[in-house]
Amino acid sequence: MPQRPRIRTVEPLTFVLVHGSWADVTFWDGVAAGLRKLGHHVYVPEYPGHGAMTDKKVTHAQISRAIADDMIHNNVHQAVLVGHSFGGSVIQKTAELVPDRIKRLVFLDAFVLKDGESVSDEFPPDVRSMFEALRKSSADDTIMLPYPVFRETFVNLAGQDLVNRLYSRISPEPAAPLFEKLDLKTYYSLTIPKSYIYLIEDNVFPQGSNEFGWHPHMSSRLGLFRLLKGFGDHMTTAATEPMKLAYLIYSAGRD
Amino acid sequence: MPQRPRIRTVEPLTFVLVHGSWADVTFWDGVAAGLRKLGHHVYVPEYPGHGAMTDKKVTHAQISRAIADDMIHNNVHQAVLVGHSFGGSVIQKTAELVPDRIKRLVFLDAFVLKDGESVSDEFPPDVRSMFEALRKSSADDTIMLPYPVFRETFVNLAGQDLVNRLYSRISPEPAAPLFEKLDLKTYYSLTIPKSYIYLIEDNVFPQGSNEFGWHPHMSSRLGLFRLLKGFGDHMTTAATEPMKLAYLIYSAGRD
Amino acid sequence: MPQRPRIRTVEPLTFVLVHGSWADVTFWDGVAAGLRKLGHHVYVPEYPGHGAMTDKKVTHAQISRAIADDMIHNNVHQAVLVGHSFGGSVIQKTAELVPDRIKRLVFLDAFVLKDGESVSDEFPPDVRSMFEALRKSSADDTIMLPYPVFRETFVNLAGQDLVNRLYSRISPEPAAPLFEKLDLKTYYSLTIPKSYIYLIEDNVFPQGSNEFGWHPHMSSRLGLFRLLKGFGDHMTTAATEPMKLAYLIYSAGRD
Repeated sequence: MPQRPRIRTVEPLTFVLVHGSWADVTFWDGVAAGLRKLGHHVYVPEYPGHGAMTDKKVTHAQISRAIADDMIHNNVHQAVLVGHSFGGSVIQKTAELVPDRIKRLVFLDAFVLKDGESVSDEFPPDVRSMFEALRKSSADDTIMLPYPVFRETFVNLAGQDLVNRLYSRISPEPAAPLFEKLDLKTYYSLTIPKSYIYLIEDNVFPQGSNEFGWHPHMSSRLGLFRLLKGFGDHMTTAATEPMKLAYLIYSAGRD
Repeated sequence: MPQRPRIRTVEPLTFVLVHGSWADVTFWDGVAAGLRKLGHHVYVPEYPGHGAMTDKKVTHAQISRAIADDMIHNNVHQAVLVGHSFGGSVIQKTAELVPDRIKRLVFLDAFVLKDGESVSDEFPPDVRSMFEALRKSSADDTIMLPYPVFRETFVNLAGQDLVNRLYSRISPEPAAPLFEKLDLKTYYSLTIPKSYIYLIEDNVFPQGSNEFGWHPHMSSRLGLFRLLKGFGDHMTTAATEPMKLAYLIYSAGRD
Repeated sequence: MPQRPRIRTVEPLTFVLVHGSWADVTFWDGVAAGLRKLGHHVYVPEYPGHGAMTDKKVTHAQISRAIADDMIHNNVHQAVLVGHSFGGSVIQKTAELVPDRIKRLVFLDAFVLKDGESVSDEFPPDVRSMFEALRKSSADDTIMLPYPVFRETFVNLAGQDLVNRLYSRISPEPAAPLFEKLDLKTYYSLTIPKSYIYLIEDNVFPQGSNEFGWHPHMSSRLGLFRLLKGFGDHMTTAATEPMKLAYLIYSAGRD
């Protein structure tokens, strides 16, 4: 964090970290440790179809329900609810379920869907076609991320060892939640404060497009929001610069 | 400034720093000290309706006149005239008044207006409506910046203490100069060199829009210009990283 | 490179560095030294109309042929072929000539032309008019880069001494290769992996435009590609931060 003041945090916050597709709770390992080091409480809930919850037959509603239930179970209040990538759509729906437990929503290179959209509606046509073909060819309605796409656009900043380590952890993603149209009318009636963190080397979607992309395309749907940026890509930065990302997330989440 | 060589400056320049709306000369305190440390001469003129000049009934012409008069009074020549935010429109008009005293114009996340425009013409519709309503509801034709707008988009990078300190200094902004259409024909006939500094986390206006925003939307009106960028937002960076900003301003202003 | 892990490279690569217009092989001096320090093999071929090859009457085909011949002569295989600026169009054509010797193409603020385009087709209208006028007024069909354009948009980050040193090295650029329409059908049939490095203060072309510019306008023609970014401009960064640029090029070129 060379551009940022290295102040110690004085306001202990409660973070709930929601990972994205082709990922599991280990995505947040370094960042969670970093936030705890800064004095915060951190929850990293599992959700269906990912990590330890291996049944791939899941719906988007089951996923957001799992996050909300985890918050209820742990008696979490005043949460800074953070979603990465697909996790953005999850925190939108979770906010509908437990709005009173959430202090702020933080989107990290994450989907912000319009009412009635599916995650896949935000895929550029070539990506969408590729994923639809992979979905069709799978036996269990999942999509495995092809290595070249992962290497070039998800972990563009990573060295070979890290690429291999991260790719070996990936398991096929349940397809249905990516293609479900989501009713977000309640979400758009909520007044929870929002932040967006954009890592400027994230090339999962075309940059500078009016039609696609994290920022400003999807971030602009947040209304009034707090923006933070850093160098970084979609999945390397959490592994290689967890303290920097932790500080960005803290800066996004504080009052 | 980790990405930049830490050279000592060898060319003493004269800087005139013009602050923006909801600000006063203290905005530049750290930056002015930084520039002086680098060996430069620095003037930070007061202007009507702001800081010590508390009468809020002012025109845009009175403001640019005050800057020009200050330069004349102090016998300033070869000035690098720097405008922040609203100050961009001020240095455009000041350049018309004392072109021979100015070596270069430097815009820091600042308005560059077209001939015939007002500052408010560059507000996105929702911002414009909000400010028009606030103007109407004021007793003295001023606009007070709402706290949430300040916190989320003017000082997105700041911690709570700094936010509070900076917000407590703010007084209502005279509305008239923001809504005056400015004749800038003379400005557009001048051949003074120009620079633009863009702090990439400045989210006062939507980023990546063709219709609104500091860079590239307004910067592109400068014709041939020198661009510099850094991490930073609209009003935090001058307070927390004054030496970095001083070096950017020096880099923008040198020959 | 403060944002990047300072790891030592473990995979020795072979880089072929192709400079751009108004430049010669000395453009790469620091970067080549940096890559060698990281353990890599580096070739920096001369090409017609530039540097030691002073005859200005050249074609685009002669330039790409010279690069390909240099690779053949040096028995280069598995090359990471890097093009800067105009050099981007050169590596596109070189890839057609010796595809089997190339492991990856890396574009550094470089032209990526569509089939049938000339480099000048990517100039904004005012730049194109200026260069056409300069071409006409030259005795030997060359274009000398005007000092103000160089200073403000090619080396915006440089101090005066460096600007002078770099500008004094510049000789007029052969015009013909910039205006030749290039058949790139073979290039677009190749499946060589590609990377794009974008230095975010490069202001040679308007930023954020849908019609012009390095990234995302021209980079988006690469199909699936690996993106890297850093602070930096068109011609200063190679001189002042060669190790940072070497590491970006390594990151762009590795498997």
